[in-house]
Amino acid sequence: MSQKFDVAIIGAGRMGQIHGPNAARHPDLRLRYIVETDPALGKALALQTGATIASLAEALADTAIRGVVIASSTDMHLEHSLAAIGAGKAVLCEKPIDLDLAKARAAAKAFEGAPFVLGFNRRFDPHVTALREKIATGAIGRLETLTLINHDPAAPPPAFIPRSGGLFKDFTIHDLDLANCLLGEAPTEIFATASCLVDPAIAEAGDVDTARVILRTKSGKLCVISNTRRSGYGYDQRVEAYGSRGMAATTNERVDAVEVWSEAGALASPIRPNFLSRYMPSYAREMDHFADVVAGRATSSVGYAEGLAALAWAEACAESVRTNAVVKL
Amino acid sequence: MSQKFDVAIIGAGRMGQIHGPNAARHPDLRLRYIVETDPALGKALALQTGATIASLAEALADTAIRGVVIASSTDMHLEHSLAAIGAGKAVLCEKPIDLDLAKARAAAKAFEGAPFVLGFNRRFDPHVTALREKIATGAIGRLETLTLINHDPAAPPPAFIPRSGGLFKDFTIHDLDLANCLLGEAPTEIFATASCLVDPAIAEAGDVDTARVILRTKSGKLCVISNTRRSGYGYDQRVEAYGSRGMAATTNERVDAVEVWSEAGALASPIRPNFLSRYMPSYAREMDHFADVVAGRATSSVGYAEGLAALAWAEACAESVRTNAVVKL
Amino acid sequence: MSQKFDVAIIGAGRMGQIHGPNAARHPDLRLRYIVETDPALGKALALQTGATIASLAEALADTAIRGVVIASSTDMHLEHSLAAIGAGKAVLCEKPIDLDLAKARAAAKAFEGAPFVLGFNRRFDPHVTALREKIATGAIGRLETLTLINHDPAAPPPAFIPRSGGLFKDFTIHDLDLANCLLGEAPTEIFATASCLVDPAIAEAGDVDTARVILRTKSGKLCVISNTRRSGYGYDQRVEAYGSRGMAATTNERVDAVEVWSEAGALASPIRPNFLSRYMPSYAREMDHFADVVAGRATSSVGYAEGLAALAWAEACAESVRTNAVVKL
Amino acid sequence: MSQKFDVAIIGAGRMGQIHGPNAARHPDLRLRYIVETDPALGKALALQTGATIASLAEALADTAIRGVVIASSTDMHLEHSLAAIGAGKAVLCEKPIDLDLAKARAAAKAFEGAPFVLGFNRRFDPHVTALREKIATGAIGRLETLTLINHDPAAPPPAFIPRSGGLFKDFTIHDLDLANCLLGEAPTEIFATASCLVDPAIAEAGDVDTARVILRTKSGKLCVISNTRRSGYGYDQRVEAYGSRGMAATTNERVDAVEVWSEAGALASPIRPNFLSRYMPSYAREMDHFADVVAGRATSSVGYAEGLAALAWAEACAESVRTNAVVKL
Repeated sequence: MSQKFDVAIIGAGRMGQIHGPNAARHPDLRLRYIVETDPALGKALALQTGATIASLAEALADTAIRGVVIASSTDMHLEHSLAAIGAGKAVLCEKPIDLDLAKARAAAKAFEGAPFVLGFNRRFDPHVTALREKIATGAIGRLETLTLINHDPAAPPPAFIPRSGGLFKDFTIHDLDLANCLLGEAPTEIFATASCLVDPAIAEAGDVDTARVILRTKSGKLCVISNTRRSGYGYDQRVEAYGSRGMAATTNERVDAVEVWSEAGALASPIRPNFLSRYMPSYAREMDHFADVVAGRATSSVGYAEGLAALAWAEACAESVRTNAVVKL
Repeated sequence: MSQKFDVAIIGAGRMGQIHGPNAARHPDLRLRYIVETDPALGKALALQTGATIASLAEALADTAIRGVVIASSTDMHLEHSLAAIGAGKAVLCEKPIDLDLAKARAAAKAFEGAPFVLGFNRRFDPHVTALREKIATGAIGRLETLTLINHDPAAPPPAFIPRSGGLFKDFTIHDLDLANCLLGEAPTEIFATASCLVDPAIAEAGDVDTARVILRTKSGKLCVISNTRRSGYGYDQRVEAYGSRGMAATTNERVDAVEVWSEAGALASPIRPNFLSRYMPSYAREMDHFADVVAGRATSSVGYAEGLAALAWAEACAESVRTNAVVKL
Repeated sequence: MSQKFDVAIIGAGRMGQIHGPNAARHPDLRLRYIVETDPALGKALALQTGATIASLAEALADTAIRGVVIASSTDMHLEHSLAAIGAGKAVLCEKPIDLDLAKARAAAKAFEGAPFVLGFNRRFDPHVTALREKIATGAIGRLETLTLINHDPAAPPPAFIPRSGGLFKDFTIHDLDLANCLLGEAPTEIFATASCLVDPAIAEAGDVDTARVILRTKSGKLCVISNTRRSGYGYDQRVEAYGSRGMAATTNERVDAVEVWSEAGALASPIRPNFLSRYMPSYAREMDHFADVVAGRATSSVGYAEGLAALAWAEACAESVRTNAVVKL
Repeated sequence: MSQKFDVAIIGAGRMGQIHGPNAARHPDLRLRYIVETDPALGKALALQTGATIASLAEALADTAIRGVVIASSTDMHLEHSLAAIGAGKAVLCEKPIDLDLAKARAAAKAFEGAPFVLGFNRRFDPHVTALREKIATGAIGRLETLTLINHDPAAPPPAFIPRSGGLFKDFTIHDLDLANCLLGEAPTEIFATASCLVDPAIAEAGDVDTARVILRTKSGKLCVISNTRRSGYGYDQRVEAYGSRGMAATTNERVDAVEVWSEAGALASPIRPNFLSRYMPSYAREMDHFADVVAGRATSSVGYAEGLAALAWAEACAESVRTNAVVKL
């Protein structure tokens, strides 16, 4: 019979409500503590998971606690990660590590060799995993170019924009990490162009809502990222990998497998409407990986270095839009 | 430079308007004569093809005429075929050879060894041809069962029913021949059940509009035929062949390759609306085969025997519906 | 905070290993007892779920137990159901209720008004549910015909055949119930034809492995069921519902959403390989319904009457094959 | 009965062999003359179409000739067009109008008001036409972004490269015109990046084989063009148009509608292997339009101005690659 490892979670908001239950029901983990400043949020997650409300200090001081899941607000990710790593805990931290690249770089040394998993959940998506395996086993020959389509169903409330870090650090960062994961080679140049076509309030808040990014690697591989804040047809999540002998792609999941054929044509049911309905399995598999790291059965497959890289490239995207020029990395 | 062979056509109605231009534009054929009792129909086809109006006797008496395409009314198919075969011409005759099985059987001897192509056009459909090749090359292992879906878009006018021969001889006969072509083994038993669900006027005319047929061969292969006179979504034409190692199917052609994704789902454009838009390539390839037969480069791949078989099985379907019992062949 | 209802499970074999954990993790249920004669099976499920091993008598005697899940061997379904119903428990019983129609009919009175859910899981499948809703809301007009495709990936070991009840009671019974659920009208006639094409050992055991069934209702609706024990390409589960204004169908789920395009064509990943990978969500939703019945929030949507109907029609299928004739119901 | 208009064709090479027969079989046109310096090519097309070999002067001097199809080598397009326009003929000229933008601009005045159709065949593709209509009728709301995928199956022989004008003028130019046609707004900025990944001989010839281009319009619409000279999976031709309420796309045509399902997955037949098999209908419809222009029933829908625009943008792409910077138009 397998041993369970005690873990704590910091944050019971939107992401905590995903990671908390995932940890609580994981066969190898026991969620012991919830660290949350909002009493109502904390209590709700405690009721759902059976964990106890605790302060950060209490949670980190408990030597039985082997891992900490960090789902606090973005501006606290780095501080909480440093504290948990410092206390000898394994960490699963939500992306991004921080919105300030310089600050994140300055802290990098503390993470060297630490059991730190950064929550780029798409790497754990079953379809992405299957695609990587196809590429790895040569199904398309040598990878040459990549297209990443990441279209949100509907724009966030304008009030969210100022503290989001902007489209590139908040949203595109997932695609930048996916490019990192799939290209097998870092970009050396980035060009981005962006518009505000969805909601003028986003422009007033200083951001953009529609973007195209091109990454170019040293060997000449090209990667296009397509982003919009509002698709009008659901949460469009596709990857197309072009190689010397063919193409491998992930298509969208649909809400059900029904088709209706009429005089108007063949109507397949809509694609998943949002990230929760689309990516829940990826969060569960991310927790599996974290459990393996907590148990010492695996080393982190996506850590601080990947977080720094994606953040740097997101900054480069913003700079490219600002200067309307290629940014060399 | 290739020689052109002179041919004549009998009938300038619905099917003559397909076969006439196909013959006229065929690189190996020259359409010389049109035999048609309706002057307006004859003249229209003559203008379109450059052929001359002639009597049947004139056309058959011209020794330069090597082939005759028979697109007359169903009740004249057999008489015209006998005349043309008797005059030493190669014949392409529209299906069915006749509505009266006994009469058709009695005439069979005249067709032995004759260059006679029966117009079961689906055998020449590119998708059916590709499917046959997949089966022949072992893509699905040993063929075990077959499903044929043949759904008309909209019911014919009730006035058409009495002279149509009924659903099985007029419509299902295509599927019965396709089963003959694909199963590689004749059925030994047939069961059919049918309803009138589309239009009560069809029942009043003594016919049915919705049917399911099961053929069973000696070795136990099973074939289901699905028919309706009105699909409500276009001309549904599919074949599913199940074997010991997999399945091969033909899907429907669509009017165009456009998809529209919206909140309602992904709408692919409608399937082909009718037999003309769906099967024109099959008629052109049927004419290719006839040209080969006329030129003596090929022997007929689908002739009188296949016509007799399909007609006999269509009668068995009708008998099965009448007796509500299995008919042994 | 919601109350949990105590339940017991009888049987920790193949189906118990599905229903046991589903009950244990259900938010409204607490799995208390496992009744299982095989100590190893019982212990494994107890470890996994935290429930206690108990005798049937102990479980039924505990007044706190509100519901019983019956996952015992088929020949015990009826006896266990009667005992649990008699003890005042709500029951979720695996299909079929019994292999002996006369015996099942004789017991029917005891189930009148009882909170009895029969485990026809496909009624709870999300795709089937969505299809039913499309039909109910008129997406295809008036339903006229139905095609049910149920192809197992690979034949069971021959030793399973003799105690299975045969293809129709073991396998087709799912489709018969689905037809009952979707047609909205009971069949009045059944015709079935079947072959042994997959494995001669199945014929030696007195059974068939490939079948086609046609149901006909009073109003003339037609339903075709397509069954094979070995598809060679996975677990093919499709429904096609044809109506007066169109068609609604459920397509297959795939193992992932990847496509590989090469010179050979576009290869979509395989369909689900077996019933576990395909139907787990339906079992979870079936348990949701049972929890509602246990809680008194709902009455059973599929009970003893549906079990009797499907069993009677399965017998009719077998009789039709035996007599090679239509069976009137 | 409709009048036929006499036309001539200049060039009996690759494109002449498409346009010549299309003109010859067009119901409203009669192909009278073939102007071709290579006797073998000329004779072959004459035999096929029934037209006569003539000199350019003869063809243009014949006042019965109402239209001229120009399918000569690219470096002669402009000279031949000027001659034919000068002789008062309607012209259908293959793309591009010239490889030298300055020269083409200098000649523009001569084409003002002239009946000149430039052969951007994709505008006449049925799928593109259907897509345009969807956009025009508001199916996706307001168009915001566009993705054009144009992947050749296999690289041309290196010897072709030096006289091709390079990837952008030879190949991307189709996409640039399609963007012009679909965006409804000219780009104000272009960024292009390109690699030589397919064949080093292409780099040695001073060209690239893999490119991504981003067009940006004044209102902020974005268009990505994806090009490669060798896909490894056929001739990939797709358009994706994203709007405020959804997406409309053209998918690829396939060589047939067959799917084979096996343990490996569901294999759909390959997409069209090359431009001939994919775009023949577009050339036929282009000839329809030309016939309308010849007959005076329509004015040209795509003329010299569109040719100049696409050529200028192709030069901008090359300049962007050379300077690794955005080019303002």
